[in-house]
Amino acid sequence: MDIEAFRKAGYQAVDAICDYYTKIREMPVNSTVEPGYLVKQLPDHAPEKGEEFAVIAKDFQEQIMPGITHWQHPSFFAFFPSITNFESILADMYATSVSNPGFNWNCSPACTELEMVVMDWAAKLFGLEKSFHGSSGAGGGIILGSASEACLTVAVAARERCLRVLTEDAVSLNGNHVNGKSEDSVQSNGISTGVDGARVKATQVVIPDDLRASSTPKMVMYGSTQTHSIGKKAAIILGMQFRALPTYRKDDYALRADVVRQTLEEDTENGLIPFMLIATVGTTNTGTIDHIADIGAVLKDFPTTYLHVDAAWAGVCLALPELRQTLQLDPINEYAHSFSTNFHKWGLVAFDATALWVRDRELLTSALDVTPAYLRTAQGDSGSVIDYRNWQLALGRRFRSLKVWFVLRSYGVEGYQKHLRGGLDMANVLEEMIQSSPDFELLVPKSLALLVFRYHPSDRQYSQTELNDLNRRLHASLASRGDIILTQTVLPAENGEEGTFCIRFSLGNARTEKQDVVQGWDLVVRLASQLKK
Amino acid sequence: MDIEAFRKAGYQAVDAICDYYTKIREMPVNSTVEPGYLVKQLPDHAPEKGEEFAVIAKDFQEQIMPGITHWQHPSFFAFFPSITNFESILADMYATSVSNPGFNWNCSPACTELEMVVMDWAAKLFGLEKSFHGSSGAGGGIILGSASEACLTVAVAARERCLRVLTEDAVSLNGNHVNGKSEDSVQSNGISTGVDGARVKATQVVIPDDLRASSTPKMVMYGSTQTHSIGKKAAIILGMQFRALPTYRKDDYALRADVVRQTLEEDTENGLIPFMLIATVGTTNTGTIDHIADIGAVLKDFPTTYLHVDAAWAGVCLALPELRQTLQLDPINEYAHSFSTNFHKWGLVAFDATALWVRDRELLTSALDVTPAYLRTAQGDSGSVIDYRNWQLALGRRFRSLKVWFVLRSYGVEGYQKHLRGGLDMANVLEEMIQSSPDFELLVPKSLALLVFRYHPSDRQYSQTELNDLNRRLHASLASRGDIILTQTVLPAENGEEGTFCIRFSLGNARTEKQDVVQGWDLVVRLASQLKK
Repeated sequence: MDIEAFRKAGYQAVDAICDYYTKIREMPVNSTVEPGYLVKQLPDHAPEKGEEFAVIAKDFQEQIMPGITHWQHPSFFAFFPSITNFESILADMYATSVSNPGFNWNCSPACTELEMVVMDWAAKLFGLEKSFHGSSGAGGGIILGSASEACLTVAVAARERCLRVLTEDAVSLNGNHVNGKSEDSVQSNGISTGVDGARVKATQVVIPDDLRASSTPKMVMYGSTQTHSIGKKAAIILGMQFRALPTYRKDDYALRADVVRQTLEEDTENGLIPFMLIATVGTTNTGTIDHIADIGAVLKDFPTTYLHVDAAWAGVCLALPELRQTLQLDPINEYAHSFSTNFHKWGLVAFDATALWVRDRELLTSALDVTPAYLRTAQGDSGSVIDYRNWQLALGRRFRSLKVWFVLRSYGVEGYQKHLRGGLDMANVLEEMIQSSPDFELLVPKSLALLVFRYHPSDRQYSQTELNDLNRRLHASLASRGDIILTQTVLPAENGEEGTFCIRFSLGNARTEKQDVVQGWDLVVRLASQLKK
Repeated sequence: MDIEAFRKAGYQAVDAICDYYTKIREMPVNSTVEPGYLVKQLPDHAPEKGEEFAVIAKDFQEQIMPGITHWQHPSFFAFFPSITNFESILADMYATSVSNPGFNWNCSPACTELEMVVMDWAAKLFGLEKSFHGSSGAGGGIILGSASEACLTVAVAARERCLRVLTEDAVSLNGNHVNGKSEDSVQSNGISTGVDGARVKATQVVIPDDLRASSTPKMVMYGSTQTHSIGKKAAIILGMQFRALPTYRKDDYALRADVVRQTLEEDTENGLIPFMLIATVGTTNTGTIDHIADIGAVLKDFPTTYLHVDAAWAGVCLALPELRQTLQLDPINEYAHSFSTNFHKWGLVAFDATALWVRDRELLTSALDVTPAYLRTAQGDSGSVIDYRNWQLALGRRFRSLKVWFVLRSYGVEGYQKHLRGGLDMANVLEEMIQSSPDFELLVPKSLALLVFRYHPSDRQYSQTELNDLNRRLHASLASRGDIILTQTVLPAENGEEGTFCIRFSLGNARTEKQDVVQGWDLVVRLASQLKK
């Protein structure tokens, strides 16, 4: 395709996108295609001769679009929002036009430096304290592809940190001799900041192989039953143990500090080594916020344990000063080794854009820096720049900072806050409707823009099993439609009863208005009442 | 930004991109900004009020562009090409306009199904045999973000496969009892295909915890000194050992099968457990192709060892039938458990688009599937669709198949082949010039579009140290310029001499013409002759 063909195809793509957003409200939100719908339509091999782009663009509309679920639709209430917008589309156009693999500062200095800048902007927007800022020289932020990638990345850092603490402990116990290694095991690098103070950061520890081999199988990652599966998956990937601590309905499924203390004490007595705990601000099931202040205080007694705060969905609401106490900003700032949130959920930046901040970048780079000759640069060698490849699992990286820059500038702090408050307002509308429906119940209090409810008719007593069956049928009846999407979940079993099947109503999409919420809820009520008949 | 504002900004972005590509040949290829150039210019916090997009777009040109290294420039000869094109830009526009997190088939059925289709197109384009095709029902392809992600992903699968083989061996040794576990450890799932035949695939093995704990620290991943650092990094991330096997100049730094056999025998005798070997088709240093046929045959005697073929750069050249023997297609088809190549290097699809094919998808899903209630779907539960999250480390994923589809259709097989042959032609031009320069030498024979050379004046004898010094200065002199980019590397030390510093001249960019190669080489010759003065 030459330049003028691109100009034409580009204009047409812009127009097609404008048409899409003009019509989106009138479209069904849910794709109702059957598995295999597209595989059946397309040829089974690439064409021999090149095709005109006009044909390809037409096929996008006719073949691809029917299989698209419209996450930007005003009636998309499933999972969590995954917002895209015109700013993100423009950023991806510009970014792809100057595409590069981004592993080094000098792959394109602008990409790295813009990421440093916008991650400090966002750290300030969310109230993260100075040691999380890149400008501190010690910590800083990076944009990754997903909260799962962030979790896995910090888990690697947490494992190495744990092994360093164990090495140091062995050194101090054995008079500077660890398993036959000399005092070379501990070397000062002069950095001393953050939650660990001088304890771990001030030293670069060489971890003896035998300590690594003997300790790793005993190391345990902790979360709760409500921690996103990304925690367990990170542990599985690393070949390590994950323990899901119990949570209870009376606590709205928040992880409690006494449960943490009791388990870590028992496990430690049994020879296990806690190396990481994931606390969640806004769980996927119910939007619950763990008791980070109390948990953080407990972890002070378990110095091998790294605290990662996963606020994938709720974290962006730290941009609202009135929510910072609820969202536990102060304890995060006091105790967390790392914090992550997804711009690409409620946060107005198109997937993928997960923000991860660490308080000690050296924990990442010491675990992840493997620099061969062909990746060396004068700037990297001198330490005058960040080479983000050493902060992440993979080598290459997209120019994601551009979309964050476009969004934060185009909306401004005011516009960003207004957007978030819009979702909170819609949630208030829904909460009132649910609470005034005698046949429905909220299973936990509303959390930000998430409401978790079930149908619970008031006409007679229902067993848990009956209610689960009713609500499964209600969800199936909703899921078969094209005009609304809601996700189901199951809350943990308690008191010998089976777990609670329930439905999540997730707000925050930019196009959702009061009428959409009212319409959506009316539909739920109508389908539920048909079920009973 | 509303719809009409986007239309305006979108047209302007298209025009700006057209301008960029109209002027690119006249621009310096290399950004010569100093570290901190952008951080200094930008405010240290997000703006309070939203800004007009016209201002932001202007700042992109004035503040970002000076810090962009122009990877599409005809004189970009560094690293490997990282090609973007108009098809990729258009695909990113469309994809971002319907952005979704892509973890399930039903996040947007089109995204998953298009990926299944284009990965089968590409498998056929590259000549991969049927068991690598998704349509086989057993294997299939996935698009990931980078070759490093592909390597780490298959390493997890390889570790689990190794543990299964060990479990099975223990079962057959101990009469269906492994460490006190009953015959439940081995359950048939009826799948039996691929290189392992019935051995591993036909069983779903429950790996005993104590076998995992005792075996994992002994497990070793192998590559050569020329394997990309992504291998070592994957091992480090997993907390496992990596061994770089020696390669020699006389073999053009290809990994030899006898070295593999000898090392694996020694390691096995010493109680270590080989679990994975990375063979490379087209190393980063020199474009070397490992002896996969012989290595594959050796690995038959080490059944715990998974063979991953990393063809990140060279793999796309399998689209050229005349190169398939050189690139070892038959042995790949015979022996490899997985194969990956980057569309986003020479392969005409913008970063990020790494193709990974496996012959047994169940090796991935059994290692990576963690499905909580809130991610369950009727389609996923029924097994009628692929949920790609279970083939990868992370949960969320971009709609990357669209750009592969746009590119393969727009170019067609003919256009794709023509592009690749263009790079090969340019490399022939350069090879002839280097070979006819008495003061330069190729350190290995040209590989596809990569030439690795050094300045070696013919006026007198030079020691290795003198030559390294000369070439370091030559590279520094090239690196300080804006009009060309070449990357350095160091080839392994041998015979007690220090390693060989050399310069890589990497071709394949879509805009490079004969005049650019001639000009680039003339510059190298001129700078070199100035050095001697």
